Amino acid sequence: MADNQGRRFSCGIDFFHVPDLRVAVTSATEAGFDFVCTPISHPRCKREFIEGPARNRGGLFAVPDALLSGQEWSSSIVGKISPWILPDSVDEATRYNSEKALNQELSYASHLSLPAITVQLNGGSVARLASILNSYLNTSLGHQQVWIQVPLCATNNGNDAVRDTALEDPWGWWNTLRSMCSFHKRLGLVLEVTQALPTDVEIDRWFGEPIKCLSFPTSIFRTNKKGYPVLSRGHQEMAKRFFKLRIQSIVSGNCQDPTKNQPPLDDYQKFVRGYGDYLQWPLQPLMDNLDSQTYEVFEKDPVKYARYEEAIYLALLDRIESNHNETYYGNGNNSIGFSVVMVLGAGRGPLVKATLRAGYSLQTKLTVYAIEKNPNAVITLQNLKAVEWGDQVTVVSTDMREWEPPCKADIIVSELLGSFGDNELSPECLDGAMKYLNEGGISIPSKYSSYLSPFSSSKLYNEVRDCREKDRHPLISFETPFVVHLHNVHIFSDPLECFSFSHPNSGSGSRSNDRYICLTYQSPSKDTVLTGFAGYFEAILYKNVTISTVPERHSEGMFSWFPIMFPLREPIYVKAESRIDVHFWRKSSASKVWYEWCVTNPYISGLHNPNGRSYTIGL
Amino acid sequence: MADNQGRRFSCGIDFFHVPDLRVAVTSATEAGFDFVCTPISHPRCKREFIEGPARNRGGLFAVPDALLSGQEWSSSIVGKISPWILPDSVDEATRYNSEKALNQELSYASHLSLPAITVQLNGGSVARLASILNSYLNTSLGHQQVWIQVPLCATNNGNDAVRDTALEDPWGWWNTLRSMCSFHKRLGLVLEVTQALPTDVEIDRWFGEPIKCLSFPTSIFRTNKKGYPVLSRGHQEMAKRFFKLRIQSIVSGNCQDPTKNQPPLDDYQKFVRGYGDYLQWPLQPLMDNLDSQTYEVFEKDPVKYARYEEAIYLALLDRIESNHNETYYGNGNNSIGFSVVMVLGAGRGPLVKATLRAGYSLQTKLTVYAIEKNPNAVITLQNLKAVEWGDQVTVVSTDMREWEPPCKADIIVSELLGSFGDNELSPECLDGAMKYLNEGGISIPSKYSSYLSPFSSSKLYNEVRDCREKDRHPLISFETPFVVHLHNVHIFSDPLECFSFSHPNSGSGSRSNDRYICLTYQSPSKDTVLTGFAGYFEAILYKNVTISTVPERHSEGMFSWFPIMFPLREPIYVKAESRIDVHFWRKSSASKVWYEWCVTNPYISGLHNPNGRSYTIGL
Repeated sequence: MADNQGRRFSCGIDFFHVPDLRVAVTSATEAGFDFVCTPISHPRCKREFIEGPARNRGGLFAVPDALLSGQEWSSSIVGKISPWILPDSVDEATRYNSEKALNQELSYASHLSLPAITVQLNGGSVARLASILNSYLNTSLGHQQVWIQVPLCATNNGNDAVRDTALEDPWGWWNTLRSMCSFHKRLGLVLEVTQALPTDVEIDRWFGEPIKCLSFPTSIFRTNKKGYPVLSRGHQEMAKRFFKLRIQSIVSGNCQDPTKNQPPLDDYQKFVRGYGDYLQWPLQPLMDNLDSQTYEVFEKDPVKYARYEEAIYLALLDRIESNHNETYYGNGNNSIGFSVVMVLGAGRGPLVKATLRAGYSLQTKLTVYAIEKNPNAVITLQNLKAVEWGDQVTVVSTDMREWEPPCKADIIVSELLGSFGDNELSPECLDGAMKYLNEGGISIPSKYSSYLSPFSSSKLYNEVRDCREKDRHPLISFETPFVVHLHNVHIFSDPLECFSFSHPNSGSGSRSNDRYICLTYQSPSKDTVLTGFAGYFEAILYKNVTISTVPERHSEGMFSWFPIMFPLREPIYVKAESRIDVHFWRKSSASKVWYEWCVTNPYISGLHNPNGRSYTIGL
Repeated sequence: MADNQGRRFSCGIDFFHVPDLRVAVTSATEAGFDFVCTPISHPRCKREFIEGPARNRGGLFAVPDALLSGQEWSSSIVGKISPWILPDSVDEATRYNSEKALNQELSYASHLSLPAITVQLNGGSVARLASILNSYLNTSLGHQQVWIQVPLCATNNGNDAVRDTALEDPWGWWNTLRSMCSFHKRLGLVLEVTQALPTDVEIDRWFGEPIKCLSFPTSIFRTNKKGYPVLSRGHQEMAKRFFKLRIQSIVSGNCQDPTKNQPPLDDYQKFVRGYGDYLQWPLQPLMDNLDSQTYEVFEKDPVKYARYEEAIYLALLDRIESNHNETYYGNGNNSIGFSVVMVLGAGRGPLVKATLRAGYSLQTKLTVYAIEKNPNAVITLQNLKAVEWGDQVTVVSTDMREWEPPCKADIIVSELLGSFGDNELSPECLDGAMKYLNEGGISIPSKYSSYLSPFSSSKLYNEVRDCREKDRHPLISFETPFVVHLHNVHIFSDPLECFSFSHPNSGSGSRSNDRYICLTYQSPSKDTVLTGFAGYFEAILYKNVTISTVPERHSEGMFSWFPIMFPLREPIYVKAESRIDVHFWRKSSASKVWYEWCVTNPYISGLHNPNGRSYTIGL
């Protein structure tokens, strides 16, 4: 139950019938299973509550707690709610009995401190079940989870009485229940693998949901030539996709471990491990000084500085060739060039090094200015100059917006881009710095654009809401763009370009860096829930040298940027193939810059972050 | 400008062109107008902001503030935003100029402390306008209102450039803007009366909106035989309906006062005056003792006690007749009856008086027990017994749930009904009291049912939200049913029956008073916004004697109960002729009772008040 990287997926076994729980737990543990799913009450103890308290039908209602240790109950047992419990049945007596029995089982599960309980859904009529579970989740203490079990594909199991024909879609059953429970964070999902495979669109949609387990009934395994039970290729491929979410598995009935080995992690995957869906406040390097560790992490990016070096190389080469042509046609200067390169925001020197390497490759003379406002980083730069760089590099300890340069630059190199491109205020900094640039000079990067995609993620909605509860202010976190490695997320439309900035700014001098755009997306062919927008960027460093965090053309191996995420205050239900309109603004005052956003289709959310009331970026 | 009750409707005049504001204000005041609508900037001062700051085109941008006193500016002037300002124009230069000019005018309006400004909408493309107004509303201090002016009926005014063809409906324009502004409470509406009259459905829909003024252009007035300008009958009828909201009017251009006299107020209207949309926490007479004033107000109800007397009379009559028949057929008892009546919750005695009057009318002998738990009210009862009632009435100072009666009753009379029928726990109290009742005895009331209607009200949404902000807890007020006289509210579907209770309870002894129902409404033929549910009740006191607060059959003149209102956390956009599903629960524990509610169509709200976390009624 471990892959070749030592990563282990927890696996449980689901017993339909447990004559002796002690024996069952012991044998499951010996067989290597991590937990056991077992009915909370005796399967045949269908209680009657119509007249007075439950009638005892010759036997205990459930297994006595002394049978296992507290440690075993609270770590190894997942309790199954009796399948005959149907609080939404059309039959009143069934409803009444079900409600009482459900509360009895929930109460006993709480008494045992079970880590989780499972409730099977058979259709979309879930209002009364949702109400009881919601009450339970809101009053029970501790960390007990309620896992809702639904089939991956709906099959008519004969339970027509409790099925809403308008809701033949298991995702719809789940969505009704969890929406009524206001996306409670202790609600999880067990997806029951069915013989029939869902379509890709159906699978994708689950990726925004809090899946805890994939459940494999033994009936879907085949026996291979060596006599071992295996999954069909289609089931294997599907399981692999789901296991990327690092979920658990459950085998219903006795069989071999069905979890599949995962491919080994590459460097990028190693870097991002542990960051999945972890919210980070965007850096504000203009206002705050980065610390040494942050520099160190980003300097290790194996892609970014190689691309910068390539861009600087090409820019220098173009300069040399243009000078050469001038020489050839009689300008009288036969040197092969002498270029002034200014590195704005030099940090601990990686772009200075890239510049020097490019100059060395071309055997061209350079004068490099390394401008850095963080006095702590300047110490490193001065040390590098003393030890390695010598006179060709001048270290300037100043804010680039206040500097008076001794000469003009041929090339300005900067790396002021944030996860959303312009969100670390590169446009404002570079607009100011363009006065240092010779006419016809080059800015690296020369252009960058942000991109946005709508997504669904119950996990991230809860992460943002949790921030809110800590802050006590009901809106701040829902109006804050967070940097986050997207993991348990379903991105359901391709990214669209949002805001673009070019340097040197080709517009007039007063051209504003404020922006507004209305983006229109088409939703997928299945209903879903919109919980926010994922932001990316793409930058043209020079000519065809680019870096990108847009998923379909992400610069391979580059780890300096996670996506940014713009939350929505309330999840928005989106019908299949409908239109989503979202408005984004980039606004500014004398001292700060902020974004505002608002959905107007399929219905209208309030404006988020008006006037930067919850989040701004300081100039 | 006053009706025959001395009620005065404020009226303003809207000048298209104001060559001299001092003269205009003086002449408007002399003509009896209360305020003047005037452009904030000179109409022909269309500023250019493309290059640097606004260019001065030979003249001031606006009227200097010294022209009027601060008192005049802040009470008599409504500032009009220039009509050429179109921040959502398809033309970039127009957008840019509009945004700058709009901010300039808003800033000046704020400087002048104008009580309100008006902004005219010409179509549904309002995203950028909404963003600017929302920022303004969120940062400007004070009480200045922003009034959005829209025509009652859309007419193509040639402004195709800024019109979204998908939104030909002025309500839709307004709804987009105010939804983006999160229903800001300082956003109001000016409805421009048009030559064409809107349909009833279109008019009804505005009743949930924060209408501040009806604006009458002089062009829609006709001249009557005496040479006075008058409105057509259709316009008069429509205006009358709107003026019930006690809104103001504006005349665009010079003319006579167009406000119409209102019919005189009846007693009911006098009683409810001042209570419109004022939220009250429901009484909890079971937990708390009512004060003398509260008793006094409710005892004055001219209808309730008359109906009770009628019901008691009929119940006694039936008893006498049934005794008489028994006598006739030889039961041997030839008295014309001797009845024991118990008044449960006698308060200061109105139901005892009604019982005695009914007995007197029938010349039948009565033994009346007046049971009351509030020791302060018992003093009044004992005084009445000493002075008026004598031996036929026994005053018992106890909680009816703890009383041990000396005999059984033939009739039990109670008035434990709340605005939602069962919400003051009448079912629990009467179920307990039924043990005092003879077999075949009568409970007055014998049955009651609650009713619910969906409604739209921007005003009430804001009232509830304001409670929230004071409480600091984001949910409590949205999960509390409030008693409220519904005023600025659009009830858009007929009420449906919710929960019913009968006494004596015909079910088995253990029959629960918990309830669950799913109600399905059809929305009207125009899109609207659902903000909550209005609750009423209807009670059968005895046989055909009923009292009702359900609007279409409200007991005329009865003022003891205002409706109850169940809010929703977020307004729900409802498309024309779609289905609304709402689930209601009545739940209980040993010590309390509460309601839970949840909308599942057109989309799913979270469950409100799960487990009574925000509001319960104490037993």
